[in-house]
Amino acid sequence: MRILIIGAAGMLGRRLTEQLLANGRLCGSQIASILAVDVVRPAFSSDAGPTLETATADITDANALRTLVARKPDVIFHLAAVVSGEAETAFDKGYAVNLDGTRHLLEAVRQVGEGYRPRLVFTSSIAVFGAPFPEKIDDTFQCAPLTSYGTQKAIGELLLADYTRKGFVDGVGIRLPTIVVRPGKPNKAASGFFSSIIREPLVGQEAILPVADTVRAWVASPTAAVGFLLHAANMDTGLLGDRRSLTMPGLSITVAEMIEALRRVAGPQVAGRITHQPDPEIAAIVAGWPRDFLATRAEAAGFRADADFDTIICDHIADEEARKAAS
Amino acid sequence: MRILIIGAAGMLGRRLTEQLLANGRLCGSQIASILAVDVVRPAFSSDAGPTLETATADITDANALRTLVARKPDVIFHLAAVVSGEAETAFDKGYAVNLDGTRHLLEAVRQVGEGYRPRLVFTSSIAVFGAPFPEKIDDTFQCAPLTSYGTQKAIGELLLADYTRKGFVDGVGIRLPTIVVRPGKPNKAASGFFSSIIREPLVGQEAILPVADTVRAWVASPTAAVGFLLHAANMDTGLLGDRRSLTMPGLSITVAEMIEALRRVAGPQVAGRITHQPDPEIAAIVAGWPRDFLATRAEAAGFRADADFDTIICDHIADEEARKAAS
Ligand SMILES: NC(=O)c1ccc[n+]([C@@H]2O[C@H](COP(=O)([O-])OP(=O)(O)OC[C@H]3O[C@@H](n4cnc5c(N)ncnc54)[C@H](O)[C@@H]3O)[C@@H](O)[C@H]2O)c1
Ligand SMILES: NC(=O)c1ccc[n+]([C@@H]2O[C@H](COP(=O)([O-])OP(=O)(O)OC[C@H]3O[C@@H](n4cnc5c(N)ncnc54)[C@H](O)[C@@H]3O)[C@@H](O)[C@H]2O)c1
Repeated sequence: MRILIIGAAGMLGRRLTEQLLANGRLCGSQIASILAVDVVRPAFSSDAGPTLETATADITDANALRTLVARKPDVIFHLAAVVSGEAETAFDKGYAVNLDGTRHLLEAVRQVGEGYRPRLVFTSSIAVFGAPFPEKIDDTFQCAPLTSYGTQKAIGELLLADYTRKGFVDGVGIRLPTIVVRPGKPNKAASGFFSSIIREPLVGQEAILPVADTVRAWVASPTAAVGFLLHAANMDTGLLGDRRSLTMPGLSITVAEMIEALRRVAGPQVAGRITHQPDPEIAAIVAGWPRDFLATRAEAAGFRADADFDTIICDHIADEEARKAAS
Repeated sequence: MRILIIGAAGMLGRRLTEQLLANGRLCGSQIASILAVDVVRPAFSSDAGPTLETATADITDANALRTLVARKPDVIFHLAAVVSGEAETAFDKGYAVNLDGTRHLLEAVRQVGEGYRPRLVFTSSIAVFGAPFPEKIDDTFQCAPLTSYGTQKAIGELLLADYTRKGFVDGVGIRLPTIVVRPGKPNKAASGFFSSIIREPLVGQEAILPVADTVRAWVASPTAAVGFLLHAANMDTGLLGDRRSLTMPGLSITVAEMIEALRRVAGPQVAGRITHQPDPEIAAIVAGWPRDFLATRAEAAGFRADADFDTIICDHIADEEARKAAS
């Protein structure tokens, strides 16, 4: 079992790599090697083990992908992306990485030939959906994205399905919910506040809520997301037919409910560190986002959401403590 | 009013060009010039008039498109494509023409800058839909194509919407039904028999029906298709919001009903020239095609289907007579 992880220096790529190293197995086989690549060299603790190799590669370079894929990994996780905010302002870069990069990867796999047909797990996003939509979006609803990022992910899904149908690859696209709580520094994503209102108060800092607390979102924890990635690698893709991308299960929850959970888990003082400071621009962006789904196909295929938001917060606290202990 | 028609040597491109020349006007303005291009030089009768210029251009060549678009046409009709059968067997060519070609066109428009924002009419197809689907497909149903051609058209729609949203172009995508009766020689398209069973018997030839006569299709005449193209150029795109592609209205009709109409229009002897010769391969392909729609948005936007199939046949007969008279 040889594994290639592209985008391994990112938030989810790091965790996935660490989880695979800890598990030692995937798809019922022992892991022989993990090649973890990113445009910035992924760094793991020195005792990560002999199965791990790291490298830098830029997926906008078709040759770089040919080199990586020439080793014929059995499973490829494709997580590299320019995120939504950047893809919206840096139009060419977004298309180069999110569209061309994904296409280069599929082409590199196809060019190997000789019956090579790896499992390819592609991280799509619920940003493939755009308003107006029904209260709950089901598995037959159209992809009508309202951002360049969502457009590029939707195109990636179409390519993945076509390359799979033609037998070049065995693809699974997972449409990730908004990942909360995202660890680390606040980033510029418009969705950033969903994480900051939990993360910052827990470490004694003030957080700003730029939207009304009635705003609803579809969320999953980093732990759940890694679970989705592993399950997508392990699952029987015969269940999917020709529709290779699935909306992942999540929690549909309002900001008020998130804050209520924070109060339950960490107390009123912590929850009191959130200040409502309306930002009409962010509010407008968020209004175009999907907020509730019937993730029927994914659930039937065995993908599992987080139990509740309290668990998501507790997970985050435990992760942060483990991180501190390790450093 | 300057017009650029790409794919002008094709079945619909020819008719559109001729219709525009006959009308002399578009979008309430007099037509100053029509540039009709194709990878094979479009040929029109010598008295086509001073407003028409023809040229060859290959849309897989980004530079060729930059040259064409540098003239800043007010309206661009993009009809150039590799059709479904060929896109399925010639994988690279299909992507090069149908995906890259469309993207080169959008990029060429964007690169002009200076507020240039032409109306761009893109001919998509109901092949963006794939089975399983509901009895009638509505305007919110997902694009899950089952061919590379359908995949490439669906990607074209996504790009068109994103380039429109960003203000680079004023795009309208029209998902054409199967066009019946297609004039000329039988072609290799799996849908070819829908036209041959009408066209061949009318000129005294035998035609083969490779599927059961219970097979249902969503069809429109070449005349209706030209009407859609013109309306897409003329319409108020403010009606469309961010969803720029529309399923065109059509007739949902079984093969038995088509043959019944042929009998009514041309008599039992003509209708008797059709022999049922089952072809399981064609039957399987056709089973994946959508057969009925609720084209609500397009109808609300003023697109009009053919009155009935009898009219489609009569139109075809009249066209063929006009063609003979002209040559
Ligand atoms: N985090 C979320 O809320 C969320 C939601 C939906 C989808 N996703 C998707 O999941 C994937 C992982 O998300 P994440 O939160 O870990 O994102 P991240 O931004 O933390 O990681 C993405 C990684 O891709 C790398 N990358 C960017 N351009 C590259 C290039 N040209 N070549 C190689 N690598 C490149 C970056 O260096 C980064 O390490 C992404 O595809 C993202 O679009 C994330
Ligand atoms: N006829 C139908 O039933 C139908 C149904 C749905 C959609 N459409 C779409 O409508 C459009 C017109 O259809 P049509 O029936 O007239 O098709 P057609 O095949 O008669 O015409 C397509 C034209 O595109 C040209 N072309 C191909 N590659 C090119 C390239 N690289 N550069 C420049 N030109 C190139 C061809 O030479 C041809 O003249 C196409 O985009 C087609 O996909 C047609």
